[in-house]
Amino acid sequence: MTRLQEVLAKAAELVEPTEPERSRVSELAAKLLSACRQEFLGREGVVDVSIEGSVAKDTWVKGREEVDVFIHFTPSAGRERLESTILELGRRVIEALGGRHWLRYASHPYVEGMVEGIRVNIVGCFKTEPGRWISAVDRTHYHTEFVRSRITPQLRRDIRLFKGFLMGCGLYGAEIRVEGFSGYLSELLVISHGGFVELLKKAAEWRIPAFVDLTGRVRREDALRLFPNAALIFPDPVDPARNVAAAVSKTKLAELILASKLFLREPSIQYFMPEALKPPYEGDWRDSHELLGIIFRVEERPPDILWGEIKHTLNGVSRRLVKEGFQVYRAAAAQSGEEVLLLFELSSLSLPPLELRMGPPVWLDNAIDFVRKTLSREERVAGPWVDGERLYALFRRKNVNADELLREWIRRGEVAISRELADSLREAEILTSRSGLIDRIRHSEDFRVFLKNFLDGVATPLRHFAKKC
Amino acid sequence: MTRLQEVLAKAAELVEPTEPERSRVSELAAKLLSACRQEFLGREGVVDVSIEGSVAKDTWVKGREEVDVFIHFTPSAGRERLESTILELGRRVIEALGGRHWLRYASHPYVEGMVEGIRVNIVGCFKTEPGRWISAVDRTHYHTEFVRSRITPQLRRDIRLFKGFLMGCGLYGAEIRVEGFSGYLSELLVISHGGFVELLKKAAEWRIPAFVDLTGRVRREDALRLFPNAALIFPDPVDPARNVAAAVSKTKLAELILASKLFLREPSIQYFMPEALKPPYEGDWRDSHELLGIIFRVEERPPDILWGEIKHTLNGVSRRLVKEGFQVYRAAAAQSGEEVLLLFELSSLSLPPLELRMGPPVWLDNAIDFVRKTLSREERVAGPWVDGERLYALFRRKNVNADELLREWIRRGEVAISRELADSLREAEILTSRSGLIDRIRHSEDFRVFLKNFLDGVATPLRHFAKKC
Repeated sequence: MTRLQEVLAKAAELVEPTEPERSRVSELAAKLLSACRQEFLGREGVVDVSIEGSVAKDTWVKGREEVDVFIHFTPSAGRERLESTILELGRRVIEALGGRHWLRYASHPYVEGMVEGIRVNIVGCFKTEPGRWISAVDRTHYHTEFVRSRITPQLRRDIRLFKGFLMGCGLYGAEIRVEGFSGYLSELLVISHGGFVELLKKAAEWRIPAFVDLTGRVRREDALRLFPNAALIFPDPVDPARNVAAAVSKTKLAELILASKLFLREPSIQYFMPEALKPPYEGDWRDSHELLGIIFRVEERPPDILWGEIKHTLNGVSRRLVKEGFQVYRAAAAQSGEEVLLLFELSSLSLPPLELRMGPPVWLDNAIDFVRKTLSREERVAGPWVDGERLYALFRRKNVNADELLREWIRRGEVAISRELADSLREAEILTSRSGLIDRIRHSEDFRVFLKNFLDGVATPLRHFAKKC
Repeated sequence: MTRLQEVLAKAAELVEPTEPERSRVSELAAKLLSACRQEFLGREGVVDVSIEGSVAKDTWVKGREEVDVFIHFTPSAGRERLESTILELGRRVIEALGGRHWLRYASHPYVEGMVEGIRVNIVGCFKTEPGRWISAVDRTHYHTEFVRSRITPQLRRDIRLFKGFLMGCGLYGAEIRVEGFSGYLSELLVISHGGFVELLKKAAEWRIPAFVDLTGRVRREDALRLFPNAALIFPDPVDPARNVAAAVSKTKLAELILASKLFLREPSIQYFMPEALKPPYEGDWRDSHELLGIIFRVEERPPDILWGEIKHTLNGVSRRLVKEGFQVYRAAAAQSGEEVLLLFELSSLSLPPLELRMGPPVWLDNAIDFVRKTLSREERVAGPWVDGERLYALFRRKNVNADELLREWIRRGEVAISRELADSLREAEILTSRSGLIDRIRHSEDFRVFLKNFLDGVATPLRHFAKKC
């Protein structure tokens, strides 16, 4: 038995549910299906009830069980009826089974709940022909069918290994916070390469943008033209004009490429262990770190919406800092309950006292204006002079501190932040001292782990490797 | 009389020689021509003797008189005979006229001297058909003939005005130290535009690269292809494959464009007064200036050779500083006797304590090496992490001070400095404190004026304008 085989055997134990676990899930799924049939079938517009997702495909990872029941409506039922029926009857079903429930939103609202310690979702979709999709979840049933038609026991094991690998490397999940690999994409990737190790071998050789096609009908050039900004392109076998991998960011794909290389060189069970995510070194805050933290409160809302706003704001603040002359080494965000922390590492928390301003090329009419204005400014220190075809001058800066500048930009609306976060940002705490930031986040385990990871700065899939160095 | 006419009338008084001045120059020219004829004609290879340059064309600016005598050799004479004959007999002629003399080098050696307080040059050239040039000065006689054939009394006055304008703006001279406009180019520019004001009106509208053709035979597209790096292209009427304006830098051309705009808006006699070059403000060294000065000794050698080396070194040090992470706002050089001063204004004389290093894209084989090496380095502070498709990491810098780093680079040969200056640079003084630099240059008027101009930083042609602001 090779080292790789040994590791895969151990990993299989981590990701494969045991028989008792399988029974528990199957029984709950059967119970839920039967209850939903009883409640929903016969209601106006409802034409079918089915189990979908990883339970239907038998591809769920141990400890991550989640039962999805889909209620199929005829297209003529309309969105409003679908929503009201799902909300009313979905809740009733979960209550009848003794569970708790709450409302969730994706493309439209659905009911999520916990029954017997297992997460369940009751989702409404329209029963349509392929290509005539009305809602975003109408493809799901076809996805389930497609995977079931292609899967084998060996592929099931390998899909679970790949999902476990992605989870261990912090790459699993298509939500905006993660920008990683969805369950369906993971399944397709393993199926199309014929196995976990075969997939990793290919992934280790990928360049970005990467292209994988299971349909055999899409040409790489066409795909690149159709999805110009995608890091990974995987045409949906059920709908080739859709990219299953649209949510995967360049960074997360690059991390998979790297993780594949490293794992194949030196297989280790740690790649499958999310608990190994903790930084291998104590991430110390050294004197040389120049960190700017922004903490603000947010109202509860769907995570993808909130995280869209958070990332937009993170980029907006970064770009504004860079535009002003700061060097932003890196930026990251974390959420802890109702609080969000944006963290920026800069080369320095203050700008140089002088600023070089580039004026227009001399042949533009406003060149003379630049000369005149520069010479009349009290803050002028040197210039204007000519270098190449442009004018330049040195000015004394009025304000050099990142935190004060940022507060000013936010107040004046001079930084591209998400409109929905604007009020929160105006009330934000901006922290630049080590003690100030550490004291402020002391209460939150999420923030403390995040800061530790940030200070250490090793990409998740590299942490396993880092331990040995 | 308009304001412009008034200024031009006053300027004409500054640039036009008086009758007694003309007589003094004509008499010396005649004396020199006659003495050279006597010495050179009849010597092997010598076929003619003539007066060339601004005296022959009557385009010299008051106070800038300089008599050029050309000794024409037959091509079969060869370079060696030309040189030895010029050096031997040239000296003898000047001595006979009671003057001092010394050797100068351009494409080949020639004799320069002072006779009756006027600078004289005795230069050897080959008498060739156009296009069959042997040495770089063989065209000169044709240049003189061309200008004489096109000139009128009004154009003579305007050429002197333009030369005076260029001198007042620090733009006159094709030598490497200046990278400005030669006498011949100035004459051609005025001739081709029909006058001084007409030229300035056009120049105010130029874009870079600018193209002026007097031959009517060169197309702009061809010229751009033939001289891809030229800021200004002016095909030599005597040899259209040569660019008369090859020495003009982009910066100096841009300064002429700007000066033309400003002068036409508000004509002022000051544009013709080099003494107005002094900065209008006292150039103070404020606390916010972060200056790095390098002072070294140089051996005497032809200015164009020395200044080629100085500029090469200035750029080499600048680029090295930028590569290391410094922001270089501006750089300039000055010479004072045997000493050279390179001066750099930086955003800061020290680098941030941490350095962001960009690693390879993840798909390259050395990505793993970067990960491994980064993790094993004692200076690692954070990372490696992935952003987009590349690896990054933060390292602690060993040395952050510009002066110490520079000394180290020079010692190790890690900065692109002119080979001929390498020894001098190794012995250079590197100064970063205000008091250190000011004390060090106290003895030199050249350096003090240079520093004052540098601190003020206003481009020479803008200083006249600056006075009024």
